[in-house]
Amino acid sequence: MSSPTLPARLLLGPGPSNVPERVRRAMAQPLLGHLDPAFLALMDEVQERLRPLFGTRNPFTLPLSATGSAGMEACLANLLERGDDVVVGVAGVFGERMADVATRIGARVTRVETEPGTALDPDAMGSAIERVRPTVVSLVHAETSTGVYQPVEEIAAAARGVDAFVVLDCVTSLSGLPVELDAWGVDAAYSGTQKCLSCPPGLSPVSFSERAVERVRGRATPVQSWYLDVTLLAGYFGGERVYHHTAPISAIYALLEGLRLVGEEGLEARAARHREAAGALLEGVAPLGFEPLVPEAIRLPMLTTLRLPEALCGAPEAALRRRLLTEHGIEVGGGLGKLAGAIWRVGLMGENARVENVERLLAALRAERVGAAG
Amino acid sequence: MSSPTLPARLLLGPGPSNVPERVRRAMAQPLLGHLDPAFLALMDEVQERLRPLFGTRNPFTLPLSATGSAGMEACLANLLERGDDVVVGVAGVFGERMADVATRIGARVTRVETEPGTALDPDAMGSAIERVRPTVVSLVHAETSTGVYQPVEEIAAAARGVDAFVVLDCVTSLSGLPVELDAWGVDAAYSGTQKCLSCPPGLSPVSFSERAVERVRGRATPVQSWYLDVTLLAGYFGGERVYHHTAPISAIYALLEGLRLVGEEGLEARAARHREAAGALLEGVAPLGFEPLVPEAIRLPMLTTLRLPEALCGAPEAALRRRLLTEHGIEVGGGLGKLAGAIWRVGLMGENARVENVERLLAALRAERVGAAG
Repeated sequence: MSSPTLPARLLLGPGPSNVPERVRRAMAQPLLGHLDPAFLALMDEVQERLRPLFGTRNPFTLPLSATGSAGMEACLANLLERGDDVVVGVAGVFGERMADVATRIGARVTRVETEPGTALDPDAMGSAIERVRPTVVSLVHAETSTGVYQPVEEIAAAARGVDAFVVLDCVTSLSGLPVELDAWGVDAAYSGTQKCLSCPPGLSPVSFSERAVERVRGRATPVQSWYLDVTLLAGYFGGERVYHHTAPISAIYALLEGLRLVGEEGLEARAARHREAAGALLEGVAPLGFEPLVPEAIRLPMLTTLRLPEALCGAPEAALRRRLLTEHGIEVGGGLGKLAGAIWRVGLMGENARVENVERLLAALRAERVGAAG
Repeated sequence: MSSPTLPARLLLGPGPSNVPERVRRAMAQPLLGHLDPAFLALMDEVQERLRPLFGTRNPFTLPLSATGSAGMEACLANLLERGDDVVVGVAGVFGERMADVATRIGARVTRVETEPGTALDPDAMGSAIERVRPTVVSLVHAETSTGVYQPVEEIAAAARGVDAFVVLDCVTSLSGLPVELDAWGVDAAYSGTQKCLSCPPGLSPVSFSERAVERVRGRATPVQSWYLDVTLLAGYFGGERVYHHTAPISAIYALLEGLRLVGEEGLEARAARHREAAGALLEGVAPLGFEPLVPEAIRLPMLTTLRLPEALCGAPEAALRRRLLTEHGIEVGGGLGKLAGAIWRVGLMGENARVENVERLLAALRAERVGAAG
């Protein structure tokens, strides 16, 4: 008995995105052992190919064996000790999560908030940073819950002014927007594989600056997580190849193939493709009564938040999303928190960032008579 | 450009084991979203199929989105608060790891040790448990570093005598040896997918008793790990389907297919197959001068530790393992810690637990003239 066939889906929500066949074929290759020289060569290539995506030369750039949320935990748990101060920019659900994670670590959290749909105010972040003089400043590059990107450079500069370490969430931005850790002065960043990389979820690419790795090595107390301890991970990923945990072989095959696809396309062409698809989406849905939640200057290309026409708000939007899924095989995301029932989140990420996918969504909306008079 | 072909390997080390084609094909299916009803139905089936393997009816039985070592961390980090006592049975590398993980959590660790290659002494564990009256008693069912299995029932009974929670590592035992959490009175257990389940590494099936889940809900302090917090995970895996993190879709496809294969074979037949393969291995290597490290009464079937003939100890064994890999495509494991250079660890796990694989290994050893006079 083999698996029954699964329904076909066009994944236009906040992630995962669809995974190209080449990546799925690579993932299905027979296994190598995690200490096999042939596998270690693939892992080296993964690390090598991740660095330009992060805009970094950090040696410690590698895929953690867990999803993006574990990457968040890894960055904060390695850099923070109990009682340390952290300033967190909270511009949506993922900023909230950072504050929660840091609190559990035992850090003293200062939150700088902004309304959902707006960007963090660099001045507000700057004054909090100067007042608190924290060990870590933490923020989300592309806030997937609102569709906004943050002024990372200005905030990172303020953090460096008090010698704080900067942690950046790049889950949704990596390979869809320029990420420049070295130029921006970011010390630790994490991402996921299921957004603009169009690989299956399950890994979290992370990068730590040498300064950050030194900080971890110099901690007074051990990192609370053995699994995510950067100093132990460095033993496997560095030259010594010390066994730490069993690397997720098949997921690494997939990630490598996804990174090769990014390499073949080039980062600039990829970013342009994301912008083009987002533009087509906004243009296409405007006549149907959907308006962008976010002003153009801070609007993400890979994840568009759309204010729903009045008639769709609340229960009708949930019913329509269900019909899009079951009748048309298209997944789009609903709003989170305060924005639930009032917005949609439409992802055009990685391989999915193509005008033809926008057209499929528009055709389905028209078939459902969205925006039709009466 | 597609991936170059990888070398073919027969994985007879301590894991991963080879993944059957049916599982790899299932893994390569196109993605569903992690909140898609069609995906949630598969996740339900995974949970349903995991329970008999663990010998439990625990509702909280599910695959964590990280490898077995994160499962260890999840069990200990959820049940222990800072300052709590834990008694850890240390019979090898994975018992050591438990002690390390618990220390990082801030627990007070009492170690009960035994020589590598021997089983924990239930009396020694029992007196430590009575003396310390710990919150948690933690041990490894099948110690992969030595090839020994532990007297779980007796130790669990002693733990229950002082109302302690029992944590059990089932990484290597699950679906290869009987595991009976409910009958034994184990409160939290974790496993991996890359051993006797013959799925790719990357997930950690775990199970928590209702008593353990209640303990987590009643903690005075939040679980230090947001990613592994049982109360948050229960929100996604329970009826509410609250978004926590993005489930690793493709790895879940693979696990489900692996569990279906286990279901088709039946647990008893599978355990018998593991015993048969291990018997064939010991019989086959005896004339070549390899002897079992572990007495039969406590010897694992899926992972056999072999004392090497004198002439192979040290550098020659490493060279021979390298030749087995590169010339014969067979991976076997070396010794860890004190046993490095003196033993091999040969895994016949899951799909690989077959006499034909033993024969391939024996043929390779003969071709390398192992055991030949002169």
